Amino acid sequence: MFTINELQGFFLNYLRENQIEKKPENLYQPINYILNIGGKRLRPTLTLFSAELFDCSYERALQAAMAVEIFHNFSLVHDDIMDQAPLRRGQATVHTKWNTNTGILSGDAMLILTYQYFDIYEPKVYKKLSKLMTRTALEVCEGQQLDVDFETRDNVTVEEYIKMITYKTAVLIGAAMRMGAIVAKADKEDGLLLYQFGLNLGIAFQLQDDYLDTFGDPLLFGKQIGGDIIENKKTFLYINALENADEADKKTLLDLYTSKLEDNAEKIEKVTAIFKKTGSDVASQNAIKDYTQIAFDVLEKIDLSEKKKNILKEFASSLMSRNV
Amino acid sequence: MFTINELQGFFLNYLRENQIEKKPENLYQPINYILNIGGKRLRPTLTLFSAELFDCSYERALQAAMAVEIFHNFSLVHDDIMDQAPLRRGQATVHTKWNTNTGILSGDAMLILTYQYFDIYEPKVYKKLSKLMTRTALEVCEGQQLDVDFETRDNVTVEEYIKMITYKTAVLIGAAMRMGAIVAKADKEDGLLLYQFGLNLGIAFQLQDDYLDTFGDPLLFGKQIGGDIIENKKTFLYINALENADEADKKTLLDLYTSKLEDNAEKIEKVTAIFKKTGSDVASQNAIKDYTQIAFDVLEKIDLSEKKKNILKEFASSLMSRNV
Repeated sequence: MFTINELQGFFLNYLRENQIEKKPENLYQPINYILNIGGKRLRPTLTLFSAELFDCSYERALQAAMAVEIFHNFSLVHDDIMDQAPLRRGQATVHTKWNTNTGILSGDAMLILTYQYFDIYEPKVYKKLSKLMTRTALEVCEGQQLDVDFETRDNVTVEEYIKMITYKTAVLIGAAMRMGAIVAKADKEDGLLLYQFGLNLGIAFQLQDDYLDTFGDPLLFGKQIGGDIIENKKTFLYINALENADEADKKTLLDLYTSKLEDNAEKIEKVTAIFKKTGSDVASQNAIKDYTQIAFDVLEKIDLSEKKKNILKEFASSLMSRNV
Repeated sequence: MFTINELQGFFLNYLRENQIEKKPENLYQPINYILNIGGKRLRPTLTLFSAELFDCSYERALQAAMAVEIFHNFSLVHDDIMDQAPLRRGQATVHTKWNTNTGILSGDAMLILTYQYFDIYEPKVYKKLSKLMTRTALEVCEGQQLDVDFETRDNVTVEEYIKMITYKTAVLIGAAMRMGAIVAKADKEDGLLLYQFGLNLGIAFQLQDDYLDTFGDPLLFGKQIGGDIIENKKTFLYINALENADEADKKTLLDLYTSKLEDNAEKIEKVTAIFKKTGSDVASQNAIKDYTQIAFDVLEKIDLSEKKKNILKEFASSLMSRNV
């Protein structure tokens, strides 16, 4: 069986050889741009890996993997407009390099192209993939809306936060894996379990992302440390700190999160100190371990060899101990 | 067989009884809002009518009709953001009533919901509907991009203009009709012909829309007369006038179309006079007749009773002689 790194390489080759060469140029050029500026290709690689898990050649799953990747990039393009983000993976975002209208329209085309990549599959497989994509895509929108709603609320609970990241991030990782199982015509039950594995891994993955945003190594982490704090993002670290802080720290935290400052260094330092004092850093690492463990428990129930399960476990562990 | 008016009524009932009651509210409320502010419901009604043409109850086609209608409304929501339009059918546009981010995200959800309405169909029918929707949706985006591209070009030809409205408007009317045929499991050839009928009807429909925007009766036409002229829209009337004007009128036209003025009454008057002098009004009506005739010629080849064909012809004629 191919390793995850090998499959990632196969996907990158496929992507390189399948640039979109359609017109009008002003619609498709931004799509090729965003698809080519990098990223871990985690989701499409998991689709290929899942197909191989159930004894189906990754080649059969390349189009489904591409659908997952282009959908993911659609969501980035539109989210970046909504967040007014200038950079994505260190490069100009689509709406910055072109303009907002281009970002909206090229994003729409990417969302539609997602479905076109399913065209090669026979009707039964096509419907399964397309239905799962649709449900997942709608949940991703709902997660994004919850994230927006949280901005103007000061009573967000950890439970609500987990629901938000589940929808915004984790369901697509679950769906990416299940799509591999669907293409491989795996047992339905195994596909559902693989979805649950991916979902819980996805939650842990996002929690780790949030953790690294504050506690990552500035030399290794790709983005500016403290970005979430600058943006007043109500992450697990913040919500947990608010729940466990004494009155003085709670007031400081609330005050610091009401305004965007010119100089953020002091804000980041103070907030990080409260995150540590309230044990949010430890609680976050524990939550990551918990969700990873749930994923591992689900994995036990899938009808796969121990060898295959171990590859998945090692991969999950490496994701969670990552620095970037 | 039900009349087109009856089927329109059935669709309106279905729409009323199937409000989207999902959460988060901030995502779905704007969707119900835009779906309920009216419109002719031309496209979904044609889907129902097409199903009935091939002896399938309209009830079987309600979900496909709903998909067409929600897709059409998605395109309106995103187009209105791009055009910075404050009003749609006399009501505030989504991005005006809420904000641009809500318009983007609720629009995305509508595009995704389009596919969810196909879920009730069996895999073979599902794949046909979904593939057709995907191809059509991509063409609608391409048409919108061409429309945007035209804004900064001064050498747009009539042929390019027809291609733009074909993609932006006509393909969805063709697809709406073919979807009815697909649900009815009509002969593939008949479905393709019905698509061609709808496509040519759609081109004529858009040309009539453009004509009424300048030459419509202010008392009957729902929008401000001269809106396209104010916006410097390169419609059939404008492109034809530019091709046939003498040097002086050509210069006047180009000058008037380079800036947006405070007082548009004089601009509208001058441009309209040139449209008439160059025969653009007559040429436009002739083009409408030509595309309607192509639609009628296609209709002759479809395996349907004369009675049914006559209903379609009468409907097409009424669309083209409309004042609103």
